[in-house]
Amino acid sequence: MSTLTSNFINPVTRPTLLLDEHKCKANIAAMAEKARRLNLQFRPHFKTHQSHEIGRWFRAHGVDKITVSSLSMASYFALDGWNDITVAFPVNVLEFETINMLAARIKLNLLVESVESIKLLNNGLHHDVNFFIKIDAGYHRTGISYDDLSLINAVLTAASHADHLRFIGFLTHAGNSYEARGREEIMAVHHESTDRLRSLKMHYVNDYPEMIISVGDTPTCSTMEDFSGVDEIRPGNFVFYDLMQVNIGSCSFDQIAVAMACPVVAIHKERNEIVIYGGAVHFSKEGLKDPRSGIIYGKVAEHRETFWGNAIEGFCLVKLSQEHGILHVPGNIIDRYKTGDILTILPVHSCLTADAMKSYLTTEGGLIRLIQNAQAQR
Amino acid sequence: MSTLTSNFINPVTRPTLLLDEHKCKANIAAMAEKARRLNLQFRPHFKTHQSHEIGRWFRAHGVDKITVSSLSMASYFALDGWNDITVAFPVNVLEFETINMLAARIKLNLLVESVESIKLLNNGLHHDVNFFIKIDAGYHRTGISYDDLSLINAVLTAASHADHLRFIGFLTHAGNSYEARGREEIMAVHHESTDRLRSLKMHYVNDYPEMIISVGDTPTCSTMEDFSGVDEIRPGNFVFYDLMQVNIGSCSFDQIAVAMACPVVAIHKERNEIVIYGGAVHFSKEGLKDPRSGIIYGKVAEHRETFWGNAIEGFCLVKLSQEHGILHVPGNIIDRYKTGDILTILPVHSCLTADAMKSYLTTEGGLIRLIQNAQAQR
Repeated sequence: MSTLTSNFINPVTRPTLLLDEHKCKANIAAMAEKARRLNLQFRPHFKTHQSHEIGRWFRAHGVDKITVSSLSMASYFALDGWNDITVAFPVNVLEFETINMLAARIKLNLLVESVESIKLLNNGLHHDVNFFIKIDAGYHRTGISYDDLSLINAVLTAASHADHLRFIGFLTHAGNSYEARGREEIMAVHHESTDRLRSLKMHYVNDYPEMIISVGDTPTCSTMEDFSGVDEIRPGNFVFYDLMQVNIGSCSFDQIAVAMACPVVAIHKERNEIVIYGGAVHFSKEGLKDPRSGIIYGKVAEHRETFWGNAIEGFCLVKLSQEHGILHVPGNIIDRYKTGDILTILPVHSCLTADAMKSYLTTEGGLIRLIQNAQAQR
Repeated sequence: MSTLTSNFINPVTRPTLLLDEHKCKANIAAMAEKARRLNLQFRPHFKTHQSHEIGRWFRAHGVDKITVSSLSMASYFALDGWNDITVAFPVNVLEFETINMLAARIKLNLLVESVESIKLLNNGLHHDVNFFIKIDAGYHRTGISYDDLSLINAVLTAASHADHLRFIGFLTHAGNSYEARGREEIMAVHHESTDRLRSLKMHYVNDYPEMIISVGDTPTCSTMEDFSGVDEIRPGNFVFYDLMQVNIGSCSFDQIAVAMACPVVAIHKERNEIVIYGGAVHFSKEGLKDPRSGIIYGKVAEHRETFWGNAIEGFCLVKLSQEHGILHVPGNIIDRYKTGDILTILPVHSCLTADAMKSYLTTEGGLIRLIQNAQAQR
């Protein structure tokens, strides 16, 4: 049987994001333990789960500082008692009201990558904030290039004249690890990135003895062991993992802690397709290249005892409209399914699926809400 | 100048979906007028705007029946007095509670494409509903193939034994028009689709004299004039249009009625890139193939008097992370921009962007909310 018949699935009548609390807590425990073992500060990124309740699961492991990707998200988590927050996003100088409100209450760490931003911050800040210089160590999304010492010096000089700004280190996101496939390729990205950050630290640590090196992407934090020179890790996606991470080699299928539960609404045996209620507004339109099926948006997971198991080979979500999903059904298993069944589907990118769904139904039957009301909160 | 400096943009500090009320109302008026002129019933699809207020703008044109894509959306619009609603989605038989609640109060029209669904409906219905048979006229997403008369007959026969089901016609969505480029290709899809529906009507109209033919996709409804045999149109996206529709040939740039306003947070002159606060959770990850720039997620619009104008050639959103957007800046115009500027960006797929953003800031300064709280409402 490939459909879920367990009790926990019974309340599902519409697209619902399921959360396996046990897998999620195991993912959290494993990363917290790894950070302890490697003597790294653990500042998990909360943009993936965006939930007060899941945030509290980290406190059991002594986590007392976090990363977020927007000032709105920082405000949301400050409300739940988090008082040391890094906003890992180039500072948005239009949000001084929020910056000052947060800086008055918590230890707020911002990202800067230009002299211009330092000057704008200096003009607008009424309270102390820490800042990291965002370093581009090879990903080329944001940040000052690791070898542009003249720009780094210019930022540090500008900051030294600012009243409320304190430099606390260099931060990078080796997002190019998402292009890696397998341990060797992840390691190549990791070594390149950490080598570059380590050189910067050696160059600047005498002048700034308290500065730290902060890195954080789920592929390297999940698979690497050598973090010499690094002080802090900030992975986020590992809390749930997803098909993209399986594809990269960061995790196994059975570590994926979220799945979409979607009703079957039509079956087209003549072309081996099942239509589900569950589309781009539920899964997000993040695709993944699959060697067999082209671009896919999810994989159907088999049923095992009380929760979902591994992905069924070739049973893929191959097309998404706003609310429709089209599944390609492999071999001759289509006869096992009927209208009204619920399928559980592992998402390609759990961060985007969670953000779209705005709540989780847990294996314990609980409903956990995310930060609500997109435009008002973001 | 390519940035917006008008008053209406001043409140923007974070990613915000702007709505040009005048363009939107003009799009509504034009489609309503076309339907009147061609003697077609106009049942607009409200899945694009998902808003009570924008829904009311249609009432000024005598619109009294609508289309939606989920039972939750039907409930939302029934709350605002709409009492003739087609749910243009294969009926989800797990939602009988909502179906019966709605059927007790309004004229509810559902879509059926199997004998199985008819039987399930017959078992669960306590009130009368109308149903369309969903026809696949070439798109191959859902529906009974236009030439499968034996299955159509089987559905009609099963329905004739059901207490609360009344057949009201054949409905199709020629979604394959989205693959068309230009008027000729749209016309080919349109003629194929409407010819097939017209044949069905000729075959069944004697037995069901009140049955209608309902079609509805924005490309054909925006550009075609010959709807002979068709009784009703259900376009949705036209209310805003977007880059995808420009690309298909359904509209011009200046008919696009929504744009994202996003703060510039970093500038990388060395690679002609601007980083904005505005990512996949705001735009959605729907991409569009652009002949010059590869896959794009939006185009920056120039500034004109009180609102945005046309897209600036080559100034494209080329990469999206969760909250970051990376813009490729053409030529040597990058020096015109600075951190803290607001850029207005035309979205690829306005339905998905609106769904992600959950509200609109209008040119009149108003805030219009969409249906809220994804999981609870969908």
